[in-house]
Amino acid sequence: MGTSPQSDFLRALYQSWSDRMAANPAMTLADLRSLFDEWHQPTLEPEGVTYKSDVLAGVEAIWALPHGADTKKVILYTHGGGFAVGSAASHRKLAGHLAKHLGATAVVIDYRRAPEHPYPAQIEDSTAVYKELLARGFKAADIVTSGDSAGGNLAISTVLKLRQDGVALPGAVIAFSPWLDMEHVGKTLQTNAATDALVSKAVLEGMSGMFLGEKGSRTDPLANPLKADYTGFPRLYINAGSAETLLDNAQDLERIAKAAGVNVTLSVVDGMQHVFPFLAGRAPEADDELRRIAQWFKGA
Amino acid sequence: MGTSPQSDFLRALYQSWSDRMAANPAMTLADLRSLFDEWHQPTLEPEGVTYKSDVLAGVEAIWALPHGADTKKVILYTHGGGFAVGSAASHRKLAGHLAKHLGATAVVIDYRRAPEHPYPAQIEDSTAVYKELLARGFKAADIVTSGDSAGGNLAISTVLKLRQDGVALPGAVIAFSPWLDMEHVGKTLQTNAATDALVSKAVLEGMSGMFLGEKGSRTDPLANPLKADYTGFPRLYINAGSAETLLDNAQDLERIAKAAGVNVTLSVVDGMQHVFPFLAGRAPEADDELRRIAQWFKGA
Repeated sequence: MGTSPQSDFLRALYQSWSDRMAANPAMTLADLRSLFDEWHQPTLEPEGVTYKSDVLAGVEAIWALPHGADTKKVILYTHGGGFAVGSAASHRKLAGHLAKHLGATAVVIDYRRAPEHPYPAQIEDSTAVYKELLARGFKAADIVTSGDSAGGNLAISTVLKLRQDGVALPGAVIAFSPWLDMEHVGKTLQTNAATDALVSKAVLEGMSGMFLGEKGSRTDPLANPLKADYTGFPRLYINAGSAETLLDNAQDLERIAKAAGVNVTLSVVDGMQHVFPFLAGRAPEADDELRRIAQWFKGA
Repeated sequence: MGTSPQSDFLRALYQSWSDRMAANPAMTLADLRSLFDEWHQPTLEPEGVTYKSDVLAGVEAIWALPHGADTKKVILYTHGGGFAVGSAASHRKLAGHLAKHLGATAVVIDYRRAPEHPYPAQIEDSTAVYKELLARGFKAADIVTSGDSAGGNLAISTVLKLRQDGVALPGAVIAFSPWLDMEHVGKTLQTNAATDALVSKAVLEGMSGMFLGEKGSRTDPLANPLKADYTGFPRLYINAGSAETLLDNAQDLERIAKAAGVNVTLSVVDGMQHVFPFLAGRAPEADDELRRIAQWFKGA
């Protein structure tokens, strides 16, 4: 595939997780959460970034504050992990790299997780934090919603919910390898099954079950943004790796949003795994992608 | 005990680990390492600190660089976790708080862990990093070795090894709840068994077995610093919580070092668990202790 040797760190980490989960099918949720918190490992520390623990609208969060960043601009970052695992801690460095590249601050939120808190707890938390950012004086146009995997879904569904509620929308949305398809009908689920070291239909079925609980619907546009109307949606950057089972979630989103007149950019990087920007500071594919995003962001 | 409600976060975390380990006696080493990496959770982000991933003498490490710190001073921090678990990542925030309080930088090292790498791999790595710090221009007197639990052992044994090798010694040593007794004969192992939520004789026996392997000796002074001669040892700050099974390791170290003429300070905080400075930013007991350490350090 011509991928860098450094990028194999992420594939190897995912393979080790898959092996550990396969060896222990009865792994507890607590152990799964510990395991997925290793997600920070591929990411090197972004230099020149300080952090601050905070609570916004009752939601715990970590601020990433790059030296010299425009403190009027903020990325509201929702971490991935199937709505059930992952944390602000596991995504701190990734958000720090993104913030540094965009010249903005970032706030990574520990929204309530499934299954203890099924849909729509996650969107309630993300929209509450968004409104708190407005209350703290941030202008809507200076807010970016961003996230990866299930958090990429949230970065989008948060905006759809804000539009529904008549709240001013953020200036931009950035989704890394978004997981949107709650029906598990995407073709790359099959065609990339052999190359994706982490995400399988079985894993997604387990996670969507926890997320939607007994009451949620697989075709609710706020749970499955492939079913949403994108009229008036902010400019949108989507990325994915070509090795991913979730690849066509990104491609379908681009198509649907474009048809609604949204300014969309899709970047698919050859041979990369799920949420390859986790390789920031380690592999050129991630750093190059972050540079492209910065160029896109500043070229507004 | 009059402990703060916030300090219960650490006890509750330890109890959850003990429960998870008891429920799954066959937990793999990989899963144990994931679990212990939750050690960062009690610690809030220290504000005004940036980080840098680095490699020193082949050992991966994270620098904590507080704003306004004296960059000529450095804490060589060795993390705890029975020589087998724990990481630079799990101790990054703790080292950041300590560095900030001392007005110094810190470098937290990912030394090789047991059982893949038994004794003396850990001391080889820590002394190699120490020499690399000297090679990078740090003066020995401006280096502090510090660590917690098994890393508190290393903060001491590293100095003993440097003395053996005729290398200039660091200016000070700070040990949080050091685990020194590889014979498991301390009385508080029994008398505090009911109050310590994490550390039991059984846990320590498992870890000393991995650490010492087939060749190591339980009475080797570089593995068990309670057997060492402290003549000429740098000034030494030791702390522990009164609820700990390892309490008398700290007390015995104070007695032995004092008898050898070392300038020793021991701080035992009432009702606290193992390595209670992990509560930095969250509980007053930890912040007060770090302030005492800073006063001690600056009063030199």
